Order: sequence, then C-alpha cells, then structure tokens
Amino acid sequence: MLSSFYVKDHVKAALAEDIGFGDITTENLASETDYLKGALNTRCDGVLCGTDVFKTVYETLSSDIKIKFYFKDGDRIKKGDKIADIEGPAKYLLMGERVALNYIQRMSGIATETRKYQDKIGDYPAKIVDTRKTTPNFRAFEKYSVKVGGGALHRFNLSDCAMIKDNHIRLAGSITNAVKKLRENISHAHKIEVECDTLEQVKEALSTDCEIIMLDNMDIDSMKRACQMINHKAIVEASGNVNLETVNDIASTGVDIISSSAIVAKAPTLDLALDI
Amino acid sequence: MLSSFYVKDHVKAALAEDIGFGDITTENLASETDYLKGALNTRCDGVLCGTDVFKTVYETLSSDIKIKFYFKDGDRIKKGDKIADIEGPAKYLLMGERVALNYIQRMSGIATETRKYQDKIGDYPAKIVDTRKTTPNFRAFEKYSVKVGGGALHRFNLSDCAMIKDNHIRLAGSITNAVKKLRENISHAHKIEVECDTLEQVKEALSTDCEIIMLDNMDIDSMKRACQMINHKAIVEASGNVNLETVNDIASTGVDIISSSAIVAKAPTLDLALDI
Amino acid sequence: MLSSFYVKDHVKAALAEDIGFGDITTENLASETDYLKGALNTRCDGVLCGTDVFKTVYETLSSDIKIKFYFKDGDRIKKGDKIADIEGPAKYLLMGERVALNYIQRMSGIATETRKYQDKIGDYPAKIVDTRKTTPNFRAFEKYSVKVGGGALHRFNLSDCAMIKDNHIRLAGSITNAVKKLRENISHAHKIEVECDTLEQVKEALSTDCEIIMLDNMDIDSMKRACQMINHKAIVEASGNVNLETVNDIASTGVDIISSSAIVAKAPTLDLALDI
Amino acid sequence: MLSSFYVKDHVKAALAEDIGFGDITTENLASETDYLKGALNTRCDGVLCGTDVFKTVYETLSSDIKIKFYFKDGDRIKKGDKIADIEGPAKYLLMGERVALNYIQRMSGIATETRKYQDKIGDYPAKIVDTRKTTPNFRAFEKYSVKVGGGALHRFNLSDCAMIKDNHIRLAGSITNAVKKLRENISHAHKIEVECDTLEQVKEALSTDCEIIMLDNMDIDSMKRACQMINHKAIVEASGNVNLETVNDIASTGVDIISSSAIVAKAPTLDLALDI
Amino acid sequence: MLSSFYVKDHVKAALAEDIGFGDITTENLASETDYLKGALNTRCDGVLCGTDVFKTVYETLSSDIKIKFYFKDGDRIKKGDKIADIEGPAKYLLMGERVALNYIQRMSGIATETRKYQDKIGDYPAKIVDTRKTTPNFRAFEKYSVKVGGGALHRFNLSDCAMIKDNHIRLAGSITNAVKKLRENISHAHKIEVECDTLEQVKEALSTDCEIIMLDNMDIDSMKRACQMINHKAIVEASGNVNLETVNDIASTGVDIISSSAIVAKAPTLDLALDI
Amino acid sequence: MLSSFYVKDHVKAALAEDIGFGDITTENLASETDYLKGALNTRCDGVLCGTDVFKTVYETLSSDIKIKFYFKDGDRIKKGDKIADIEGPAKYLLMGERVALNYIQRMSGIATETRKYQDKIGDYPAKIVDTRKTTPNFRAFEKYSVKVGGGALHRFNLSDCAMIKDNHIRLAGSITNAVKKLRENISHAHKIEVECDTLEQVKEALSTDCEIIMLDNMDIDSMKRACQMINHKAIVEASGNVNLETVNDIASTGVDIISSSAIVAKAPTLDLALDI
Repeated sequence: MLSSFYVKDHVKAALAEDIGFGDITTENLASETDYLKGALNTRCDGVLCGTDVFKTVYETLSSDIKIKFYFKDGDRIKKGDKIADIEGPAKYLLMGERVALNYIQRMSGIATETRKYQDKIGDYPAKIVDTRKTTPNFRAFEKYSVKVGGGALHRFNLSDCAMIKDNHIRLAGSITNAVKKLRENISHAHKIEVECDTLEQVKEALSTDCEIIMLDNMDIDSMKRACQMINHKAIVEASGNVNLETVNDIASTGVDIISSSAIVAKAPTLDLALDI
Repeated sequence: MLSSFYVKDHVKAALAEDIGFGDITTENLASETDYLKGALNTRCDGVLCGTDVFKTVYETLSSDIKIKFYFKDGDRIKKGDKIADIEGPAKYLLMGERVALNYIQRMSGIATETRKYQDKIGDYPAKIVDTRKTTPNFRAFEKYSVKVGGGALHRFNLSDCAMIKDNHIRLAGSITNAVKKLRENISHAHKIEVECDTLEQVKEALSTDCEIIMLDNMDIDSMKRACQMINHKAIVEASGNVNLETVNDIASTGVDIISSSAIVAKAPTLDLALDI
Repeated sequence: MLSSFYVKDHVKAALAEDIGFGDITTENLASETDYLKGALNTRCDGVLCGTDVFKTVYETLSSDIKIKFYFKDGDRIKKGDKIADIEGPAKYLLMGERVALNYIQRMSGIATETRKYQDKIGDYPAKIVDTRKTTPNFRAFEKYSVKVGGGALHRFNLSDCAMIKDNHIRLAGSITNAVKKLRENISHAHKIEVECDTLEQVKEALSTDCEIIMLDNMDIDSMKRACQMINHKAIVEASGNVNLETVNDIASTGVDIISSSAIVAKAPTLDLALDI
Repeated sequence: MLSSFYVKDHVKAALAEDIGFGDITTENLASETDYLKGALNTRCDGVLCGTDVFKTVYETLSSDIKIKFYFKDGDRIKKGDKIADIEGPAKYLLMGERVALNYIQRMSGIATETRKYQDKIGDYPAKIVDTRKTTPNFRAFEKYSVKVGGGALHRFNLSDCAMIKDNHIRLAGSITNAVKKLRENISHAHKIEVECDTLEQVKEALSTDCEIIMLDNMDIDSMKRACQMINHKAIVEASGNVNLETVNDIASTGVDIISSSAIVAKAPTLDLALDI
Repeated sequence: MLSSFYVKDHVKAALAEDIGFGDITTENLASETDYLKGALNTRCDGVLCGTDVFKTVYETLSSDIKIKFYFKDGDRIKKGDKIADIEGPAKYLLMGERVALNYIQRMSGIATETRKYQDKIGDYPAKIVDTRKTTPNFRAFEKYSVKVGGGALHRFNLSDCAMIKDNHIRLAGSITNAVKKLRENISHAHKIEVECDTLEQVKEALSTDCEIIMLDNMDIDSMKRACQMINHKAIVEASGNVNLETVNDIASTGVDIISSSAIVAKAPTLDLALDI
Repeated sequence: MLSSFYVKDHVKAALAEDIGFGDITTENLASETDYLKGALNTRCDGVLCGTDVFKTVYETLSSDIKIKFYFKDGDRIKKGDKIADIEGPAKYLLMGERVALNYIQRMSGIATETRKYQDKIGDYPAKIVDTRKTTPNFRAFEKYSVKVGGGALHRFNLSDCAMIKDNHIRLAGSITNAVKKLRENISHAHKIEVECDTLEQVKEALSTDCEIIMLDNMDIDSMKRACQMINHKAIVEASGNVNLETVNDIASTGVDIISSSAIVAKAPTLDLALDI
C-alpha cells in the first residue's frame, strides 16, 4: 500500500519541513567524524508500525546510518522492549530523530488503537475498518497502520466504491433510483453501498442489487433485526457510536464490518523514544 | 503563518487524495443544475479554527460555492451553534465535504485542546506552547491552530532557534562549551536554549549567555528552585509530564513557558458536521 | 473524473512542453493589440470529446480568449461542422493552438473509436470497456474519452479491484485459494475478478464467491458455454481478439462486458482544425 | 534526448497512476520470498524502442529485478524473438509489468511505424520527420522513438526554430516582412522556416534569407517545380497527405524532409508481452 | 519568453523561500484594515525590466494590491524617477516588498548592463548576446532581461543549437568530421556553430556548411582577418575578453555577434526602492 | 544548511534548464565508450565554495564520473591552482560542465567577496553578514557561500527573527508599542530587531527589551555614539553604505554586525574552468 517511491517523496517533504534551512544546533556541534549509537525503545505496550518509513527517513539523510529492527510491523511490543539498534554519524542521527519518531509514533499509535478494537470484538467475525476521516495528505500512512493493527480497510477514497448517503438519495429520489442509476454508470468493477438510517431503508436497499448496506447510527436491536432481514444477501456495515465500550455489542448483532473514525482520528501517538 | 499559496497547494493535494479518479457516486447522481443549501454545525463545545482553509477547499473545486461564517478563528463555539451557511452546486458541495471537514475538525480540535490548557493555567503568566511532535507535512496547520487556541509557539523547526539537548552536550563536552561554540557559529538573529535535567545543569546554563533554559521532566519543587535561581535572567520553559491535571501546578512554579506535545498529538478532532 | 485542478496542472505542463522558452515566431510577429477570430471545425465524422480541456488550455494562457462551443462532449459531429467559435489576442490564440488540438483530437479520436465498437454491439446488452493499456500519465484523459464515447470503464488501476491472472493463480496454488486469500485481505468495498483461459477454470471460479469472471481469449462457442455455466451468478467479461469485426459476435454470446485495449491504444486522432 | 532524471520522474508518476494505493491483488498473493522468471517476447515484427525506460520502471520499484536485453533500441525484431530475460521478486515483477509494457509497446510502435515510412522512401535522400502533433506530456518519448526508428526530428517545440504559417504572414503583411522582422528579433542561433501553399509563395520565400521552405499540401508536380525553383538554396520540407502510399512519390520530387504526424499519432502499439 | 504560468510558479517558490512560516513582524503589527500607499522609485539611472514579474509577486499574495507603472520594460529611467505607484493592504504590501524588489532589481541590473554594452557598440551592426553562464534556475529571467536591455540572445540551452567546441573536435577527429556527423544526426531545424581558436580552424570551418563561426579569444587583428575570410558566408561571433573597454573595438572588426557572460554574471543590481 | 535532498532537486531542475531536450552536440559526437580526463583549475585568487554541489551535478548525470578535490569549501585558492581532477564518460563530462561551473563559480564568487570584507574588518570583532537581497530561489546557496567566506548570517527569511522597520513603527505608533506587541505575539524562541535612523530612535529602542538594534545609514560618528549608548545591552548592527572602502571604519565604531547586500548581489563570479 505504501509504495516506496511515495514514501520517499513524503519523507523528503517532512524533512524539509522540520530541518528548514539547517539544524543550526547539530550542524555546529557535531563534527564530521562524531559517531553515535542508540536504541529505539518503547515506553509503553502497543503494536509496532512504520519500520520501513523510519528507515526511509534516515536513508534520505545519509547512507551511513545503520538500523537493525528486532520487531516487525504488526508485532505487539511491551514497555521496555528494545525495538531497534541504530548507529551512524551523530549529525544525521540527531537531525532525523524527530521526523523518524513522528512517523513511527503516529503509525504505531493507530495500529495500537485498532488492535484494541479488534481485540474487543473477540471471536465475532466482524472486522473493525477505517473511514475517510483522516489527516489531509497522510491517509495512506493511516490506512496502512489500521491494516497493520489488525483492522480491515474501507474504500480508499471517493473513486473506488460508490456510497449512497442521505443527500444522494434525495438527489436521486429514492434508494432504488440511486442504485439503478449508479449501476448503469459506474464501472462493473466497483461496488455500491447504501447508507440506511431505518429498517424501512434497509428493506428498500435489500430490494436493489447493492453489495453493501450500512446501518447508520442504529441501536443494537435495530442492527440485529437488520442483520436478520439482510441474511447475508449483502455485506452489513455498522457505523456510529463505535467505541471501546460499544464495539463488542455491535459485533454481537451479526454485522460484518464496523467502521470507526476513532481508530485514526482519536488514536494517541505511541510513546517510543530514541535513547542515544 | 498559513500563506494562502501554501494552503492552496496543500488543499489541492488533499482533494486529489480523497477524490482520486472521481467521486463516482456524486458525479453520477448530481446533475449540473442540482443545487443544495446546508449549514456547518457544531455537535459539541470548543474553539473554532480553520475557516479560511475550509473556504479554500471549496474554492478549489468551484467558484460557485457560497459560504458565510458566523464565527471566526479563535471564537468559542457551543454545541448546537450554526457555524456557517453554505450553498451551491450539489456536485461540488458533496465532493468537498469530507476534506473540508477533515481540516476544520482537526484544526478546531487542536485549538480546543490548547484553549483547555491555557484556561487551566489561569492567571499565571505562563503560556502553553507546542513542540516539534507534529504530523509530518501538516505542521503549519497544527501550529496555527495552537496559536488560535490561545497558546504560544515554540520554534518552527530546527533552523530558527538552537536547542542544546543531552546529546549535544555530550558532543560539545559541556553546556558551557556548547553555548560558546554555537554563539560563534549561529546567526546573531537566533537564540540558544539549553535543556537541563538537574539544578546543577541549570546553574551551568545560567553562567552562559543562553536566552532560554528548559527544565526537562523536573518535579514541582525543582522547578520552583530553578525559577528562583534563574530569576528572569533567562526565559524558563517547563517540559515533561504536562497534562490537564498538572499544568496549573507547573505554571505556579513561575516558569514562563510550558511546552506540550499533547495539545497537538493527543487532541481529538472536534465534532463539526455539514447538515444539508 | 477529470477534476479541474488535475486538468489545470496537466495542461500547464503540456504548455511548458510545447512553448519551451517562448514561441519565437508569434511573440515577434503578433503585437499586443493584434486580435484574431477563428473556428474549430471538423474534417471528418466522429464523437466530440475534450471541450473543457480545450478551454483550460486557453484559460491558462490568457483570460482574454473567448470560446463558444456548439457541441458538447459525447455529441456526434459530422465532417464540416463548426464545433466552436474562438476569438482573442492573436498571440495567445496561436500559441495555444497546437496543445489545445493535441488534447481534443486525441480525446475525440478515442471517443469516436469507442462509439464504433459500442454501435457494432448494437442491441446486445454488452458494454465495451477499456483496459490498463494506456499512455503513461495520460490515463484519466483516455478513460474519460472512453466513457464519453459510450463505453463503460474497467478498474482505474491496480488498487480499486482485484484481478487474479495466471501468475497469481500459480502463486496461490489455485483459483480457489487465491480468491479465499484475497477475500480475507482486501477491503469489503472491492470486488474480485478471475481471469479464466478454460471452461474448467470457469467452473472453479464459479465455485468461489468472486464477482467477475473474465473469459480470456476464448472462442465464440466456449464463451457461449461459459455464459450458460455462469448464468448471471457473476459478471462475465470477454477479453482478447476484440475488434470491429468480432465484437458483435462476442456480444452475442451473452457476455456482460467486452474489454479492449484497441479503443484507446489504436484509436487514430480525430481530424479537427482551427481555421483562423 | 531522454535524460535519465527526466525519465525517472515520468516513470514515477506513471507508476503512481497505475498502482494507486497499492496492487491489492499481488500484494496479498505474493509473499516476500516468491521469485519469478520471465521473458519479454514479441508477437510481431517491428523495431524495438524503450529498453532503458523499461528498465527504469523496474529499478524504480526494486533494486532486485534483473533484466538482460538481447536487442537494443533500433534493432529490428521478428515475431517470436525473445527480447529480454527478466527475473526477481514476484511482487515487483507483476506490479510493474503493465507500466513497463505501456512504455515499450508505444515507443516500439512509433519506431516501427517510422521505419516503415523511411523504408518506403528507399534510396531517395529525403528523411521522414515528426511534427508537434504529439501526446501531451509524452513528446520526448515520442520524438526519441521516431529517431530510433530511423526518422529525423523537426523542432522540439515553439522555441527552437521559427516557423511562419499563414496566420503569421497575415499578421506581418507578407512573407518578406515576416522573415525580416523575425531575423531582427530571434537569436542568430535559430533558423526560420516558411510554410508555403503556392509556388508564388515559394518564390517570395526564396527571395528572403529563410533557411527552410515548407511545401504545404502541394501536389506532386508542384513539389517538383518548387524543388527546381529552390535548387538547394533552402531546405525543402513536404507536408500534408503523407502516408505509406504517397511517401515514395513525395520523396521522388526532390524534397529533403517529409514531415508526418501519422508516424506518432496513428502508430499502433507493438505487440510485446511478458511471459512469466 | 517568460510565460505567465512559468513566472507564477517561480514567484510562488520565491515567496515561500522569503516568507517561510510567516512574516512574524508584519502579521503581528498590521491589522486587517491597515492600508498603505507607496511608490517604486529609482535611485540611479538605468533600464527598467521586470514590471510584470513585480506585479505577479503581489498578485500571488493578494488581489487587493493596486500597481500602476509609469514606465515599461526597456524604458530608460533616471535617478529620481517614480517608476510606479502601489497601494493596498499594509500586510501584503510589506510582505512582498523584498521579493518583488529582488526580481526587478536584478532584472533591471542586467538590462542596464546590456544597454551599456550595446550603446558602446554604437553604429556597428554587431549585437551583444548572452551566454549559458547564468544563475541556476534563473536563466529565463536573465535572458529576458538581456533582450529588454537591447541585446540579442544566444541559444537557450544545449538543445536548440549545436556548438562544436575543442573537446568535440577532439572526439570527432576534426572540425570537418564533427560538422558532417552532426548534420547527419541533428534536426534540419537546428544550426551548427563551430568554435575556432585559430585562423586555420576558421578556414576549416568555412569549408563545411556550418552556419556560425565563433572566434574564441582572438585578438583584434585576427578577428578582422577572420571576418574577411568568412565574408558573410557564416555568421561570425566574437567571444572572450569582452568588456566595456573592448567591445567597441571588437565590433569594429566586422563580427556579427559579440557574446559576453559579463552582462549577466557581473551586472550589479539596479538600486530601486519602495518608498511607503 | 544545504541539505543534500534540497541540493539534489535544485540541481535536477538546473540540469533540465540547461540540457532541455538533449545536448544535441555531445550526444551525437561522443560515443558510449569515449572517456575523458580533466581538471578544474582556477584562473584567479579567491575562496573556494560549492564542491559538494559540483559533485551533485555530476552524480545526477552519471554514477561513472570520478571527482577528486584538492581543496575544500572555505580554502583560499590561488591563480593556477588545480582544484580537482575529474574523469569519466565524455558524454556526461561535457554535458554537465556548464551547470557544475555555474554553481561553483557563483558560490566561490560570493565566498571570495565576503572574505574580502571580513579581511578588511581585520581585528575588530565585527562580523560581515548578508541580507535578504538575494536571487529568487537561490538564497540557500548564497547564504551558505557567505558563511563559507567567513561571514556570519542574518535571519534566513521573514519568519525566524522579527525586524521592526519604519513602516512597522508607523503601523504600531511607536517603537515601544511595536516591540511590546511583538513580544506578546511572537515565539519566545525568536528575537526582535529594531531599525533606527536616529539616535533618538536608538534611545527608545534601548528602553524596550529588543535584542538587536540596527543603525540604518548612520554616519561614523553617530554609530560611535550609538554604540556607547547601547553599551552591549543589545547587539548592534550597522547597515547602509557598506563597501570595501567603508567597512573598516564602520567596524571601528564598535558595532557587532555589519550587514551588506553587496557581498551577494554585487559579487562577480569566480573564474574557474574545466580544462579537459
């Protein structure tokens, strides 16, 4: 998902953002021959994510930095674990530290949060998935982190799956019309999802050939009845009021997919540190 | 801080990220003449931030979208307030909704969180400031939001203020050497900050001509004693363990500046919605 | 599909490519006040495509060029038709002529070719669709032209629909394994297509829950039998040896989709000219 | 002509266009250790072009793909020839296949078409050359392919050679005035070409010091007479109605240069395939 | 030569370079309603150049700045002349001042220097021209300024005119071989120039069909003899030791073109100032 | 200061600017196996600057060029010194020559000019510094060269140090108001400089807590008196009428910093040449 050439350009811009016209502290205090060793450690439990991006930050600065990871993306890590050894010219080690950590802490934070939700779902077949509520120009990193954390992914953007929301229904006149018009116009390679607020809407959606039905902000009972009505004739997605307290109950209703913006938008960064 | 030409390019990339090769739902359901009206409402209390960016998203899509804001950046808003009226071609109104909200929700979330910290500080003269722990390639938006939320700003990046940390001290041999070497080499237009873990270090820093002394992870008592020692001969910055519970106590020690990554990195997005 | 901001950047690059460090002929022969009128005419029959892109070329050069189109994208045009009137400063009219034509001639060429295929299909329900055999960095324009020409679209790229080809089957061990593994890993918002060379493979594909079955390079009889076997349980796509002679026969087999790279890769440009 | 740094950036954009947010099929079916071998074969006769670009596509994806070409740009290849061996990680081999082929098939198609025209010209000294009717933002690749196919090149864009067309003559008042004004204003390093529709115009052009005279859409007899009139005092270019049937006759008139948009705009892609 | 879209992008980058993350002085001292008037004045005599670029700087910042120029590019201006009136929001007027001046002072400096050289040449037909010794990524602005200052232009870069230098002669074996090989391979739309150090080389160059002969670092007598030998059969360019003292003598030898890097590389900026 | 990734992108653009669509001379005269050796020599005395950039130019073109420098940035070089040996494929050696020299000649020219000013200052503690009067989009290279030449640096742009000029004073009402307002609003990490035209203004500035006082266009006596008044309570910067004749006298007044645009804007390029 994170093509290396995409990551390289993103990292280069992030380094430019953080280094500006030079690291005036390090450039003046580190000589060309100063060499440092350090370790990336975790100060709390979580799921690691972003090792390749971390490495790309340092490769962009210098080919002389050596990094050895002891865990890989998706691994559960525990407070005190040494995640990686790193060594190289002091100048570049210090200059890249903040950007490298900014990526890996945010990505691991999201993976960790996602893991918590999926763990809460437990043995139910439902999967936690992300939404389009992401940080502008950082979506690919966030979606990758959700996947690494054990979640599944929703559409990437507005172009890879049709989703009929209330305003679209209003424009088309009805769910039935909207699905029909879309089916005639979108690619056969794309699916149609219908967002339903009520069981009546679910019923209408079921009468179309849409592939996915989203139950938007329904209570647990309604979700159960919706799942019975749908009876696997469409994929069922639950949305709204998803948090660590509610996610297991939602999963128990029989939905296939539980989408939540919280796993990305409200995930705190994971406390990783470079100890040199 | 947010130059219009910088914002335009960032927004264009974000729209490309979210629209991909087209909004296959809306493009096929909204005719050229469909026209919608809506309102941006807030579902909770907070501080508004990002109105110009919100407008830029829609201006990038179409010159026919009209937006009228009833609040401006920095205003406190209350659950239920109508923030803005918006109307225009249905196609572009729906196509830009998610990106426009992604900016304004995140920016308002940070402004809101910052406001909470500054309010907790109350009448003490200390200011809450941000750090370099930001989302890669989103820093300018985050820093602007901190300022709008009533916080002050730390250096933008590694180039506009020197900061001597533990590894720099090690490289230079001592705080005294590090400050001396920097003073000889950096611009006279830039300041020097020294990060101190102990009162001994504070004492050494004070004997140099550095402009800012950071008290890193000190307890309340040590911070008080440090402030007495420094006695306004340098600006004093507190860092570490800053949260809504501790920030008032920290401010009470007499420090000038309290820096916290939490106001950016752990700020939840503010729940704003476009009701059409 | 063609977002205005995407088109603007593409056009700007194309103008830079064609103008280089200046139109040394026109800049030295056209005075600031020279003004010209002209018409865009067609020298042959076809389907018009690219009117907005044509206008964007001139808007990028000058806000003083006025263009009035008498046809819109998708309209059939006949040899001798006046497509548009154009007038404005001679300098910019001449400077943009070639680039504006390069876009509209290519796009109309593809729309025209697509129209021919779809017309050949006649009353059969099958739709002609494009492939990923496109000109590098020109795909969005080409796909848009296929749609304008009455065709439908296949996936945009490798990320919006899974397609299992022979090498993927080899890697997974079997069609069954491949579909199963993909279903567990891809988004619920995405479909799976299986490329089949034989009826045995069609049979195996049918036993999975893939949404699309491609009949690759099969003869007419095999396609007929495949359609009977599949019996609308999956979308059926025909691929290989599609040309204006064969497309009606292929459509007669009952397939839903006929994909062809020829409508893009072998479409001659349409002969439009700017007569001033 | 194709600077490596220009090709790298073009290829990177093309890969982003085709891979989007990930090859969801291959990334989920190919393990890190899957390794494949394959061959690039040709399904028809032609002239090979684009070997370096093909390699750049794979180098951009991975440094582990090994490619060995058995032919070089400009070589004639015959149906069934093995063009190259390729091996490496399955993931990248499959992910880059389409883009690599899209470049080399288009470039070889143009080289092949150009070769046919030049071969038709036979022993006459005339050279087939390209025009500015190219695909937006793909011109350098197209011009390179014309050269590889044995053709010569016309000016790259509007800035490296002046060309006086009918509208320029109208603006300047006469061919004589136009040439005079240009000579005074353009660089001494650049040539002037005059487009002539009639022998009268040729006569006037000859009386100026223009370096190139273009015979636009003249019949064979007029071209012969024009060549006699010009008698090598200027380079003579024939333009209009150039196709494989007419090109030899045109060459027989004594013109030096025969320009044709068809060798680029109407060249079908060459049928090369990667058999793995 | 300076396409508006090229200038816009260059200016945007220059503003980003100078404004960084905000004009911290002006943004905090100028209110939204502060409005200023000022004048662009010249502190010394010279030739004005860069008025459009100056305007583009301000248009990029704000649509509310009004600028009225009393002179146009190429006009001679005298110490004390008011060049333009400017008024608008204080914030943007001050924020753009330095960048706007940086362009117009440099461009006017080059135009002024060029004018001096051309004036020294007086009635001789020779023209002063620039070279490729320009500031990286600023060439178009520099060449435009040379033209505005009354000079003529040499080739823009390595691609629009062939120039055979000593190393090329060595590679080809002789001037004769080099010209022959180039003529067979370069476009008929391009010229060939031969750099000659001696009269023998001039003789050999004359025996080829090259269009331009450069006399490199020859003394006045040799240049005269060279001009007699060449006798208008090729354009003659003088190069080397060109300065305000020597340029008239060089022109007196009969050369057509005198190329000098000094008019760009050693031109001091012109002292223009914004008085508000 | 010159991050390698920044330099790489700048160099790539400069090569594109100079090579255009190919070096038509060298590409047609140098075979793949032609190999050349050469030396970078200096034709005059000066200070070397830009060795890494010079190398980056060639690395961008080819990995086969070998360069060995005998001096490093900041070294004084004398007419006739061999600066570096260079060897590699003739094609790339010649193709990159002009761009590589354009960087190193300009950068060395600035370093040399700066060195002259600093040498004139002699034993006085004052440092010569640059200004914001730089070439658009070339500032980082120019500032780096000033530092290499022994100068110090002023702020990089409008964002890293506040500077109160006459117009700001007018907007704020007084120097006192301006400093007060800025102190409340800018980062504690940034300094404030006040530009003073008169000793009264110096007096007022001294009564604020600004860190730097600039004496703008004052005569020597006034500067002396200002330095006595300030008595090291602020950094003192002299500006205006700084040239090689005046700089020592200015330094003698006791100022800390002497800023001059001349060291960049009026520095002639240093005469370095590649002899092959």
